Amino acid sequence: MTAPERYSYLGPEGTFTWEALRQVPAASDGEWVSVSNVSEALDDVVSGASTYAMIAVENSVEGGVSATQDALAELPDLRIVGEYLVPVRFAVVAPTGVSLSDVTVLAAHPVAYAQCRKWLEQNIPHHSHSSSLSNVRAAEDALSDPDIHAALAPKGISERLDVEVLADDIGDNPTAETRFVLVRRGGAVPERTGADKTSIIAELPDDAPGRLLEMLEQFATRGVNMSLLESRPIGDAMGRYRFVIDLDGHVHDERVADALMGLRRFSPKVIFLGSYPRANGHVPEVSPRYTDDAFIEAREWIRDVAEGGSSQA
Amino acid sequence: MTAPERYSYLGPEGTFTWEALRQVPAASDGEWVSVSNVSEALDDVVSGASTYAMIAVENSVEGGVSATQDALAELPDLRIVGEYLVPVRFAVVAPTGVSLSDVTVLAAHPVAYAQCRKWLEQNIPHHSHSSSLSNVRAAEDALSDPDIHAALAPKGISERLDVEVLADDIGDNPTAETRFVLVRRGGAVPERTGADKTSIIAELPDDAPGRLLEMLEQFATRGVNMSLLESRPIGDAMGRYRFVIDLDGHVHDERVADALMGLRRFSPKVIFLGSYPRANGHVPEVSPRYTDDAFIEAREWIRDVAEGGSSQA
Amino acid sequence: MTAPERYSYLGPEGTFTWEALRQVPAASDGEWVSVSNVSEALDDVVSGASTYAMIAVENSVEGGVSATQDALAELPDLRIVGEYLVPVRFAVVAPTGVSLSDVTVLAAHPVAYAQCRKWLEQNIPHHSHSSSLSNVRAAEDALSDPDIHAALAPKGISERLDVEVLADDIGDNPTAETRFVLVRRGGAVPERTGADKTSIIAELPDDAPGRLLEMLEQFATRGVNMSLLESRPIGDAMGRYRFVIDLDGHVHDERVADALMGLRRFSPKVIFLGSYPRANGHVPEVSPRYTDDAFIEAREWIRDVAEGGSSQA
Amino acid sequence: MTAPERYSYLGPEGTFTWEALRQVPAASDGEWVSVSNVSEALDDVVSGASTYAMIAVENSVEGGVSATQDALAELPDLRIVGEYLVPVRFAVVAPTGVSLSDVTVLAAHPVAYAQCRKWLEQNIPHHSHSSSLSNVRAAEDALSDPDIHAALAPKGISERLDVEVLADDIGDNPTAETRFVLVRRGGAVPERTGADKTSIIAELPDDAPGRLLEMLEQFATRGVNMSLLESRPIGDAMGRYRFVIDLDGHVHDERVADALMGLRRFSPKVIFLGSYPRANGHVPEVSPRYTDDAFIEAREWIRDVAEGGSSQA
Repeated sequence: MTAPERYSYLGPEGTFTWEALRQVPAASDGEWVSVSNVSEALDDVVSGASTYAMIAVENSVEGGVSATQDALAELPDLRIVGEYLVPVRFAVVAPTGVSLSDVTVLAAHPVAYAQCRKWLEQNIPHHSHSSSLSNVRAAEDALSDPDIHAALAPKGISERLDVEVLADDIGDNPTAETRFVLVRRGGAVPERTGADKTSIIAELPDDAPGRLLEMLEQFATRGVNMSLLESRPIGDAMGRYRFVIDLDGHVHDERVADALMGLRRFSPKVIFLGSYPRANGHVPEVSPRYTDDAFIEAREWIRDVAEGGSSQA
Repeated sequence: MTAPERYSYLGPEGTFTWEALRQVPAASDGEWVSVSNVSEALDDVVSGASTYAMIAVENSVEGGVSATQDALAELPDLRIVGEYLVPVRFAVVAPTGVSLSDVTVLAAHPVAYAQCRKWLEQNIPHHSHSSSLSNVRAAEDALSDPDIHAALAPKGISERLDVEVLADDIGDNPTAETRFVLVRRGGAVPERTGADKTSIIAELPDDAPGRLLEMLEQFATRGVNMSLLESRPIGDAMGRYRFVIDLDGHVHDERVADALMGLRRFSPKVIFLGSYPRANGHVPEVSPRYTDDAFIEAREWIRDVAEGGSSQA
Repeated sequence: MTAPERYSYLGPEGTFTWEALRQVPAASDGEWVSVSNVSEALDDVVSGASTYAMIAVENSVEGGVSATQDALAELPDLRIVGEYLVPVRFAVVAPTGVSLSDVTVLAAHPVAYAQCRKWLEQNIPHHSHSSSLSNVRAAEDALSDPDIHAALAPKGISERLDVEVLADDIGDNPTAETRFVLVRRGGAVPERTGADKTSIIAELPDDAPGRLLEMLEQFATRGVNMSLLESRPIGDAMGRYRFVIDLDGHVHDERVADALMGLRRFSPKVIFLGSYPRANGHVPEVSPRYTDDAFIEAREWIRDVAEGGSSQA
Repeated sequence: MTAPERYSYLGPEGTFTWEALRQVPAASDGEWVSVSNVSEALDDVVSGASTYAMIAVENSVEGGVSATQDALAELPDLRIVGEYLVPVRFAVVAPTGVSLSDVTVLAAHPVAYAQCRKWLEQNIPHHSHSSSLSNVRAAEDALSDPDIHAALAPKGISERLDVEVLADDIGDNPTAETRFVLVRRGGAVPERTGADKTSIIAELPDDAPGRLLEMLEQFATRGVNMSLLESRPIGDAMGRYRFVIDLDGHVHDERVADALMGLRRFSPKVIFLGSYPRANGHVPEVSPRYTDDAFIEAREWIRDVAEGGSSQA
């Protein structure tokens, strides 16, 4: 009998990251390690302390998580093996006995606070905001500090802390969600499912005009669609960027492999972060020109041609 | 005699934003309004409480400032009229009598802390980090809270607070700098200097493959170089982005105006944020094909041709 | 009362060029000048001897007519004002009394002969070919030379010469047709009809890789479709080409004018040959992005923006 | 002992084609078969009557030879194995005793006549032109027909016919030359020399706007330069074209093979006509991004990545 796999995640129980990890079937048998930020989770994977880390990469309202993107670019040999979406629903929670009209000081993580601003202005117009380091911590602050009357937190927190839900689903954007990825160190690429994503990070060869265009043409000429393009500073000088890119398809798809080879020749530095099933299960439409069969047929044709065989189409 | 212009900035005195504002000659006669975050500064401009706001848009290590980019996209009719670069230099400061070896708790804004991590690991290996809301606040925390021994802050803070500099220029990246822009509401575009930048925000018409490539071709076919491309979520659904773009050149340059017209036809939503002198004074090389003269000559040629004149080159 | 306009055409009566000229309503009142080749027809226009010349530019089987394309590139200030399609139908004609089984020597212009080869092999397997200088001359040769029994010619020749049609419509390609254009010197561009074509000739700036691609992008980024691209040698050295291009649309269409301006800036030499109604009456679909309204709106927007007006879309 | 290889060429001795064939070292031991046009030469190769045919493909003044290009597109399994350049130099030749001032009727092939027009206008202003079927035939006509006083022909004709050279090198364009290719049926591709060319013919998938651009991007994204692009009608309808293309490089060059595979996936019909040494010996510059090593390295990288190996650049 082997030891259970360890999963590091931004805890404690009840965070959105924790909800993401609950979506991983294999994790139910694993050991869950609550850590206090993304860096710690990734360090656990790099050091081998954990096999997996669940980390937030993007919020549909706030955008990409810079710390995650930079860590994926800089830490060696990380691989994304899964993607998960968690709806971002905020509630106002408070210790028993507090009602909404009592609230004049509200604890909230700044990002959470920003996402509920409109509701708060209308429903608690005269409150002040006390900044907390996480959503769960905000609820804890509301319990421990008598000067804080309530907190913004995920509704589920009421299952674990002694707080009550005064109002639920108060985010300004009802469709807000956060995208998480499960990463581990190296190892086999997950099998392709037909609804896959491939994540890479690439630098441009230099800052000549049109270089980004040239890079994107590597994908376009192979019919590979891009669902994400984010620039992040390389860090050595203002104006130098690397690009975080998500592609539709799997490295085992011929068109994706061909595009990545083109990118590899073009870019002085390409990092392959992994191919993995998409959280939304969307199967991309692939033109007949870019199917595996089309690539295999073309490869056989060029071999025949190069060896002196007949060339007619 | 008229009232002085008001400039809102992220204060208090001594912040990097304050240093940026010191670079604006006209501001020396103005009234400086210290506010506590970017939103407040921009709100002052929108409401007319201030004429100008100085706001950070990008750090060479941390990347674009999301809150600024989103505010520029969503607030009506803001215009960038100047760009300023401030070197990011951190010092360890402490109340008189404290020496480096005494420090076990260090106050720091998380971004500042992240940028000094290597030096801190080597020089104060056994400290813990207390999170502060700004660099100046960190120094204040070190003064007011006896459990906090020192703080990360800009060196200049020692001119205004009763702290001493224990170590200077300790950032991991000695070339780190932050880019600020001065914004106001509407009004005339600053005159072109030959070393200008134009900032825009644009959305793609739909998510068909290759759309971003098409958008970038609007610039490339007019010889307009792009110095920044950042994606930001529109916010209504995962995977929908707008793009924050800086172009070399001024809207009064023919090639830039022509590219912007192409973009306007292509994109369902384009926001012109302004044309203004570049902080680094860099004059872009313009191919003879894309000079104002080339555009004017081509326009005269097509008029002649369309009216039945001679067409030979 | 003014003198009638003169029309030069490759004669004599009965040629395909003559049939093209019959399609021009205004020509019915003109004076028709039969000449013996395309150069003479164009020389008449350049010298002012004729106002118009009808010349063949392309055959659907044989391709572009090099002599015409080169003359349009080299003669000054020619303008195409109309386009006409003539079906290419060949008949076997012979003096009265000759039947198909009598034919052992057949006169034909080499191009006509090439286009009827299959029918001739099956139906007159044992003939020999006598080369004639034109289709009409072939029929004349069959009348005047007793060693020549029959000729390939347009069926209509039997209305003017004393020959009978032994077999009609014998071309290998039943849809073959020839495209003619009516040219004159300078003058006003024909009004736009919505179903127009614009013809140009352009050179590349140099032979750097990718130059042709760059040139074609001038059209693509304005949504202008290309119906013809032919390369012709400039003549000074092997491997140097100019390009004969037909575009969908009229120079009075904003998108076409904008593309031509782009081309003018790109190319060291552009010749505008004219905008004129298409022979086939096809109205191109124009994306909303490239309508006149889109161009006008974008121009007004950029003016407003450049003058400091509000920029929101 | 084997029979000598047979070479078909447009004869008789003394033609430019004959001069091209003299440039082929191996042909000196072969049997030379003089034929009367390009079709016969290619038919000999298709039927097996000859192993090789030498055919003209392009003249630096007149452009591509349509008949050759169409035959290469339509005959099965032809391969180009060599390329040869022949300067086009015309002389005025005449039977002994004739001087330039005696010439009032001049025999000439129409293409030759067109290329010497300026000299003739200045030096024999009052002559008339008698059309001949080839340059050599023109000289023969001048010998056999007393009404014809002189002929345009290659100077070398005076070695084989009883004519004298009255004036040499009289072409309007002193650098004019004709490009010939040696073709045979199928068989091994000539070895790469580093200064090679690859010829193909390709059709577009449909007539959607931008298709030609897409096709050219297949070459551009692999750094493959194009030295020739000619359109030829497919023949079934006006406006439908195939493209005759010459690329720098050899099908055994990785970048060329990769571009051809891309083209094969894109185009419904691609004909590979061969890779062979360039006549001008020009060695193309290849960016480090597109060398064989770059392709091999990228292929090894993607294999490693796809199998779960480390991905860092």
